[in-house]
Amino acid sequence: MHDEHPILELIRRRTTVEHFDPQHSLDEAEIRDLVRDATRAPSSFNIQHWRFVAVREAGDRERLCEAAYGQAQVRDAAVTFIVLGDLEAVDSLPGIMEEAVRQGALPEGKAKAWVEMARKIYVDEAMARDEVIRSASLAAMTLMLAAEARGLAAGALSGFDAARVRREFGIGERYLPVMLLAVGSPLETTTSRMPRLDVDRVLAFDRWRS
Amino acid sequence: MHDEHPILELIRRRTTVEHFDPQHSLDEAEIRDLVRDATRAPSSFNIQHWRFVAVREAGDRERLCEAAYGQAQVRDAAVTFIVLGDLEAVDSLPGIMEEAVRQGALPEGKAKAWVEMARKIYVDEAMARDEVIRSASLAAMTLMLAAEARGLAAGALSGFDAARVRREFGIGERYLPVMLLAVGSPLETTTSRMPRLDVDRVLAFDRWRS
Repeated sequence: MHDEHPILELIRRRTTVEHFDPQHSLDEAEIRDLVRDATRAPSSFNIQHWRFVAVREAGDRERLCEAAYGQAQVRDAAVTFIVLGDLEAVDSLPGIMEEAVRQGALPEGKAKAWVEMARKIYVDEAMARDEVIRSASLAAMTLMLAAEARGLAAGALSGFDAARVRREFGIGERYLPVMLLAVGSPLETTTSRMPRLDVDRVLAFDRWRS
Repeated sequence: MHDEHPILELIRRRTTVEHFDPQHSLDEAEIRDLVRDATRAPSSFNIQHWRFVAVREAGDRERLCEAAYGQAQVRDAAVTFIVLGDLEAVDSLPGIMEEAVRQGALPEGKAKAWVEMARKIYVDEAMARDEVIRSASLAAMTLMLAAEARGLAAGALSGFDAARVRREFGIGERYLPVMLLAVGSPLETTTSRMPRLDVDRVLAFDRWRS
């Protein structure tokens, strides 16, 4: 048994925060750093379907809060990210692959094969939609942990009026709002963590049981 | 500028591994520990839609590899998780809330309100489906980082024949296969990380730009 990596303690103590210090703010550089870390998440073919709108101004946060059925964390947190998935992100893949080849991360033949394969797969719109939800969620989880690592806290919300969010924040049909992520300085010092199901309720070995 | 939490270095160096040591194995206790950490991810109403099948036996890994179009990491990694989302997970919510109240994590009134709200929301099957993809992906990202923290590596795959995976591993219609996650001991020591888009390509302040 080796010493545990400190990330495990962080994963275990992280919790969804609903009460943020409304006086606390984050500057653009801090927000960029958080998002840069979030984009280290994996995505199929490295397409990076995730997009982020950082909502910071008081008036904007108020409007976003209303579109989130009044959930106060959206109004109070320093920033709430609208995490989007780009349904046409595959169109950026040739450029992404070109850069990967240039940096020596991928041989040219493989890069070309990936672009072709991805084009064929992403013709299926339902599949593409699932894929952007997956990618955006992987990045969102990474962002939550990156926030926690900076002494901040995060609260993810999937309950919001997507049509209204689109309208109020200039988001076209090409982008799917996947979740909101309030990030800021937590007010609670002793938030109680919600218990989880016993591991054997959610895990099976070799084959599923139903 | 404070000292950086070591998770940030881990997030930045993590990469999708395709080549695993086929001699390396993980025992049931190690697999349970990984999944237990993964379930610290958040989910809407704490429903915990994620389910995991840990595929470890050589013959099973071979069958899963075939269902994943021959992607060798599924055959070679110590374990490949079939990450599922339970489309009827909301039915477990009353029990989950009861336990949360018992542990003092939530007042009884709020717990009851959550159960009622969730029941209404989850009537919408398309919404429920999106929700399980989100939850399973949040847990999968946490599992990848928990693996990395243990000196292991992970590779997520969304390309597989879901119908075949269902059939071969006893997974009924109630569960949606969301991704495969190969976890084991990496063979590469100097995997090249795929470059990411510049942060300003994926981030906008205040409102989206299209």
